[in-house]
Amino acid sequence: TPDFDQTEHQHIRYNPLRDMWVLVSAHRMKRPWKGQVEKPSEEYVPRHDPSNPLCPGATRANGMVNPEYDSTFLFDNDFPALQPDAPEPGVSDHSLFQTKAAKGVCKVMCFHPWSDITLPLMQVSEIKNVIDKWAELLVDLGATYPWVQIFENKGAMMGCSNPHPHSQVWASNFLPNEPRLADRCQREYYRDKGVPMLLEYAKQEIQRKERVVVENEDWLVVVPYWATWPFQTLLLPRRHVLRLNDLSNEERQSLASIMKRLLTKYDNLFEISFPYSMGWHGAPTGHQLAEDMSHWQLHAHYYPPLLRSSTIRKFMVGYEMLAQEQRDLTPEQAAERLRNLPEEHYKTKAD
Amino acid sequence: TPDFDQTEHQHIRYNPLRDMWVLVSAHRMKRPWKGQVEKPSEEYVPRHDPSNPLCPGATRANGMVNPEYDSTFLFDNDFPALQPDAPEPGVSDHSLFQTKAAKGVCKVMCFHPWSDITLPLMQVSEIKNVIDKWAELLVDLGATYPWVQIFENKGAMMGCSNPHPHSQVWASNFLPNEPRLADRCQREYYRDKGVPMLLEYAKQEIQRKERVVVENEDWLVVVPYWATWPFQTLLLPRRHVLRLNDLSNEERQSLASIMKRLLTKYDNLFEISFPYSMGWHGAPTGHQLAEDMSHWQLHAHYYPPLLRSSTIRKFMVGYEMLAQEQRDLTPEQAAERLRNLPEEHYKTKAD
Ligand SMILES: O=P(O)(O)O[C@H]1O[C@H](CO)[C@@H](O)[C@H](O)[C@H]1O
Ligand SMILES: O=P(O)(O)O[C@H]1O[C@H](CO)[C@@H](O)[C@H](O)[C@H]1O
Repeated sequence: TPDFDQTEHQHIRYNPLRDMWVLVSAHRMKRPWKGQVEKPSEEYVPRHDPSNPLCPGATRANGMVNPEYDSTFLFDNDFPALQPDAPEPGVSDHSLFQTKAAKGVCKVMCFHPWSDITLPLMQVSEIKNVIDKWAELLVDLGATYPWVQIFENKGAMMGCSNPHPHSQVWASNFLPNEPRLADRCQREYYRDKGVPMLLEYAKQEIQRKERVVVENEDWLVVVPYWATWPFQTLLLPRRHVLRLNDLSNEERQSLASIMKRLLTKYDNLFEISFPYSMGWHGAPTGHQLAEDMSHWQLHAHYYPPLLRSSTIRKFMVGYEMLAQEQRDLTPEQAAERLRNLPEEHYKTKAD
Repeated sequence: TPDFDQTEHQHIRYNPLRDMWVLVSAHRMKRPWKGQVEKPSEEYVPRHDPSNPLCPGATRANGMVNPEYDSTFLFDNDFPALQPDAPEPGVSDHSLFQTKAAKGVCKVMCFHPWSDITLPLMQVSEIKNVIDKWAELLVDLGATYPWVQIFENKGAMMGCSNPHPHSQVWASNFLPNEPRLADRCQREYYRDKGVPMLLEYAKQEIQRKERVVVENEDWLVVVPYWATWPFQTLLLPRRHVLRLNDLSNEERQSLASIMKRLLTKYDNLFEISFPYSMGWHGAPTGHQLAEDMSHWQLHAHYYPPLLRSSTIRKFMVGYEMLAQEQRDLTPEQAAERLRNLPEEHYKTKAD
C-alpha cells in the first residue's frame, strides 16, 4: 500500500463538538454529476417592494404596518414555531411516547431597509449594528429563556422564503439537541483538560495554518478539521468569550469586519450570492446565567450547501441521513480555495 | 390557557432511537410559502438508454459492459466513497485532530432492467427478488464488515443522479454515527426494560392505531411518534428479527407486499413519483455476529422531503441544523393522510 495521502485516501475524522465522525472521500470529486442542478439564484430583486412584508412601510400578515426603518428592524415572526403561552401536554403514559411543553418566541430581524443588499455588500458599520442588535436580543430573551438561537437562512436553496436580508431568533424554554451536544462535549473536554476546547482549538489552528480562511486581531475563521459541508466554516474569537453580549465594542467592530471579509470570499467563490445557514452558539442563558459556564466558547457555524459550482450542491441524503456524513473534498482543500480568493466583492470590483 | 391540543399547540417529542427531541409546531402549516419551488420530477425517462451506465448492455465509466440482465443487477460503484485498501493515516498528534482509516466497499444494485419503472410499479415477486439480494449482500459483506448500509436515494430532490431504479450498499470497517446511536439507545432500553425497544414500540402502535399507515401479518408501517420529516415512516417486523437475512421466505414475501403498498400510497399522496431516502438498520455484523445483539430490532427508515405538494419541500435548515429539528404537521395528521390514500397506484388506475 502507498503512503497515506488525505486528498487521495478516504478516512474518518472526529468532530469533538458533536462527538461524531465524518467520512472524507476526496477522490470522489472526480465523479461526473448528472443529478439535480439548482436554479441560479441571481434573480432580480427590487430594492423596495411595498408588497414584501419585510420592507419599510409594508403591511404584514397580521395587519401591522412596518415603520420606515433605516437601519435594523425587529418584529415578531407572524408564523412562529414557538409561542410563549402553549398549554402543558398531559403526563406521558409510556416512556416511548414522551411529550413536553415547548414555550418560546420567534423574532425576525431585518439587516437593512433595502431588499437588494446582503451582509457582504453592507458597510462594516452597518454590520456592526446587526451584531449590537443580536447581543441586545440575547440579553433580553436570555433573561428568561435558556436558549436563544440566532440564525440566518440565506438563499432559496436554504429554505429562505424572502430575499430581504434578515436573520431569525428563536428562543425556547428547553436546550435544543445541538447546543445540548455542544454543551456536553465542551464540558467533558474542560473537565479532562482544564482549558476550553475551542480556545485550545483556535490556538492550534493558528499554528497549523492550513485550515485558516481569514483572521484578524480578535477573530479567526477556519474550515474546521471535521467540517461536513464542503465549504463549512467556524468563526471563533481568540480570547475566551462566553456569549455575544460579552464582546467589547472593538471586538464587535472587528467581528463586523471579519464577517464582511468571509462573506465576500464566499460570494466570490462561485460569483453568486452564496447561500448558507449560519448561527451563533454561546453559553446557555436563563437559569444558567448564574452557573459556571467556563467550558463554553462563543462561536458561529456557517453551513453552505454548494459543492462544485453555483448550481451544484452537496446532497446530505441516503448514506448521510442513515449512517454518517460524507464529504468530497478535504477541509484543507476547501480552506485553501477560500483563502486564495480576493477580498474585494466581485460585484463592486472596478475592471 | 386552553386545553392542550397537539394540532394547535407546539410541543417537543422524544426520539428514543436517537436520544433527541423534535419540535412539533403544527399550527405553522398556515404560513404562506413564497420560497423555493422544486422542479416537477415527472420528466420523461426512456425505458432503455444505451448511454445510461445502469442499463443492461451499457458501458460503465471503467469500460466494463453490463450484462443483458433481466432481474436485479449488482456491480461495484465506479466512484466509491469507500475502498477496501486505503492506507492507515498516521497517529493523531492532538485529541482535537483525530483521524482513523476508513475501509469498505460501495456497491450499486439495479432493481429492474427498465429505467422507467420504480418499486411501487414493480410486481411483488420482483420486489421480493430485491429483498433476497439485499439479504444475500448483507451476509456476504457482513462476514467482514461491522456495518453494511443498504439505502436508496429516490428522485433528483434526494441527490439521486440516475433515474434508473437502484439502491446502494456501503459497507465499512467502522460503525457509523447513526447506527452507533441506535445501538446505544436500544442497548440501554433493553438493559432497563428487558424487552427490545422497537418490539415494544410496534406492540404499542398496533394498539394505539393513530399512527399506523399499513400493516399485514408480519409487518407494520407507522409515522413514528417522533418523526422529523413530514411523511417519514418506520417499517417494522412484528416479531423479533435482528437482521434482513433472518427473515423467512414468507416474511420476505409479505415485506415485498407491504413495501409496494406503502410506496403506492406515497406516490398517490401528491400524484408524483415520491422522492425519499430509505435504508435498513439491523444488528451490526462482522465481529458482532458472535455477540448477543438481542437489543436490536430490524427496521427501515423512509425519509421523504416533501411537505405541501409535489413541488414544496420541508427545508431542514437554520434552526434545524443549529438547534433542533422542527415539523409543521403532527405525525398523527401525516399518518391519517397516508392511511386514507388508495392502494391502487394513480398511474395504473382504470378510470
Ligand atoms: O452516489 P450518488 O447517488 O451519485 O450520490 C448521492 O448519494 C450519496 C450517498 O448518500 C451522497 O453522498 C451524494 O451526495 C448524493 O448525491
Ligand atoms: O421561517 P422561514 O424562513 O420561512 O422558514 C425556514 O426556516 C425555518 C427555520 O430554520 C425552517 O423551519 C423552515 O423549514 C424554512 O423554510
